[in-house]
Amino acid sequence: MNSEAPIGVFDSGIGGLTVLEAIRQVLPGENYIYLGDTARVPYGNRTAQTIIRYATSCARQLVDRGVKAIVIACNTASAHALEALRKTFDIPIFGVITPVSEMAAKLTQTQCIGVIGTRATISSGAYTTAIHAYAPEANVYGLACPLFVPLVEEGWSNSQVAGMVVHEYLKNLLDNIHSESDLTLDTLILGCTHYPVLKSRIAEALASLGQHVQLCDCGQATAQVLLHSLNQSQLRANRGLGSVSYLVTDDPAQLSAIGRSFMREPPRNVEHIDIV
Amino acid sequence: MNSEAPIGVFDSGIGGLTVLEAIRQVLPGENYIYLGDTARVPYGNRTAQTIIRYATSCARQLVDRGVKAIVIACNTASAHALEALRKTFDIPIFGVITPVSEMAAKLTQTQCIGVIGTRATISSGAYTTAIHAYAPEANVYGLACPLFVPLVEEGWSNSQVAGMVVHEYLKNLLDNIHSESDLTLDTLILGCTHYPVLKSRIAEALASLGQHVQLCDCGQATAQVLLHSLNQSQLRANRGLGSVSYLVTDDPAQLSAIGRSFMREPPRNVEHIDIV
Repeated sequence: MNSEAPIGVFDSGIGGLTVLEAIRQVLPGENYIYLGDTARVPYGNRTAQTIIRYATSCARQLVDRGVKAIVIACNTASAHALEALRKTFDIPIFGVITPVSEMAAKLTQTQCIGVIGTRATISSGAYTTAIHAYAPEANVYGLACPLFVPLVEEGWSNSQVAGMVVHEYLKNLLDNIHSESDLTLDTLILGCTHYPVLKSRIAEALASLGQHVQLCDCGQATAQVLLHSLNQSQLRANRGLGSVSYLVTDDPAQLSAIGRSFMREPPRNVEHIDIV
Repeated sequence: MNSEAPIGVFDSGIGGLTVLEAIRQVLPGENYIYLGDTARVPYGNRTAQTIIRYATSCARQLVDRGVKAIVIACNTASAHALEALRKTFDIPIFGVITPVSEMAAKLTQTQCIGVIGTRATISSGAYTTAIHAYAPEANVYGLACPLFVPLVEEGWSNSQVAGMVVHEYLKNLLDNIHSESDLTLDTLILGCTHYPVLKSRIAEALASLGQHVQLCDCGQATAQVLLHSLNQSQLRANRGLGSVSYLVTDDPAQLSAIGRSFMREPPRNVEHIDIV
């Protein structure tokens, strides 16, 4: 394998841009190919079989473009398709759920971990399973926050509305925990790739609710695992600053427009591809 | 055809409950079968071919249960599948887009009509086409409001957050109109079956923005067309108060829970069915 080859990152849509951003911060010298399967977003309400088929077709596109590793920057695809992709392709493949679950399991002192995500992610129980692999005694409290994704995609993350919505959900999460136990939440997983855009709002809301909680971001956790793996296999690229190319299966203009909320540099030169 | 037979109402999910509610207000003596295809919701991001297949399978379930007429209480299915269903089944079939478009075309004095709906509905242009069939000179301004559906489904329609979100969107719609023309908006179509739940918030926001706007609700408009059709074909049931049975393709508990926001009487006795 050529260490100068790009790293492939794919998502069902645009949320994976936060994962790409987190990875580029720790591995700025790599080249990247980002693939957003925007024509088939969201994966959350598809069957496991369909999700595996979609994820395999995305990974195939990236492998055909010569990537040296793949990051599945999508919670749904990570939960359902990681093992299938590892069996199908012989390059390293990383999901976003395991790294952040291990991080949260190591950080918690109170054994009380919260997970916020989409309805599909929370009801799948994937985070609870992943956390228990590292901290079998941990109490995991999940809450679906269906307003967060549209808030981010509307570009409203810094608005007063966003502050109120975030506060309402986190208050509900704390109320749920208190109604069931005497535990104190000390660790919160942002279990959806859109949520890092709301990280400041989430921190503010927790502070105003009097809670000291560590936020665990799946992009940052995955970036550390990828860095470690590339170092171990001596596959790190030897260049100062790498480039990113973007592929989408629906309208390229949408990625550029919404990407402004997600990244310091909004995506440019977005190319449309068809995937069957 | 037996006039005592039930009327079938189907939607991709639960939003169609507002249409059912509007129809029951003008036709309380009918029996109804409501089918929510909650396992495959939302239809908005599927291809036209898939939407026709899904809608046909829903209609087939209702026809097999002996309905005398079908209401497609879903904007996406109405836009794409109405003609296909009319060719396939020999009972009267009604969509939600045409009736409310005709209503708005008749009501507008300023020839300036707004339409709010999901991204898929607005970008399809289905309302613009339908309105122009009745008012070729009308100026139609569409705005997607992606936060409205999750606000309603969270049961937050009466919250302060909902008021702020609704105000923000309607202000954007008015700003868009003013930036392009000197026209005055006087008619607004609620082009999504969830939106009647936010009707009071929408009316308040328009009033606070100093606008006198008539709200056109697709359920109410469709109810009038259905009433007229049943009268003409002498197919009205002869009973005081009819009953409703509910079918869903996913978890029945979900319909009962969210239905509380939609209806005076929340759905009871919800039955699960499988549709292939």
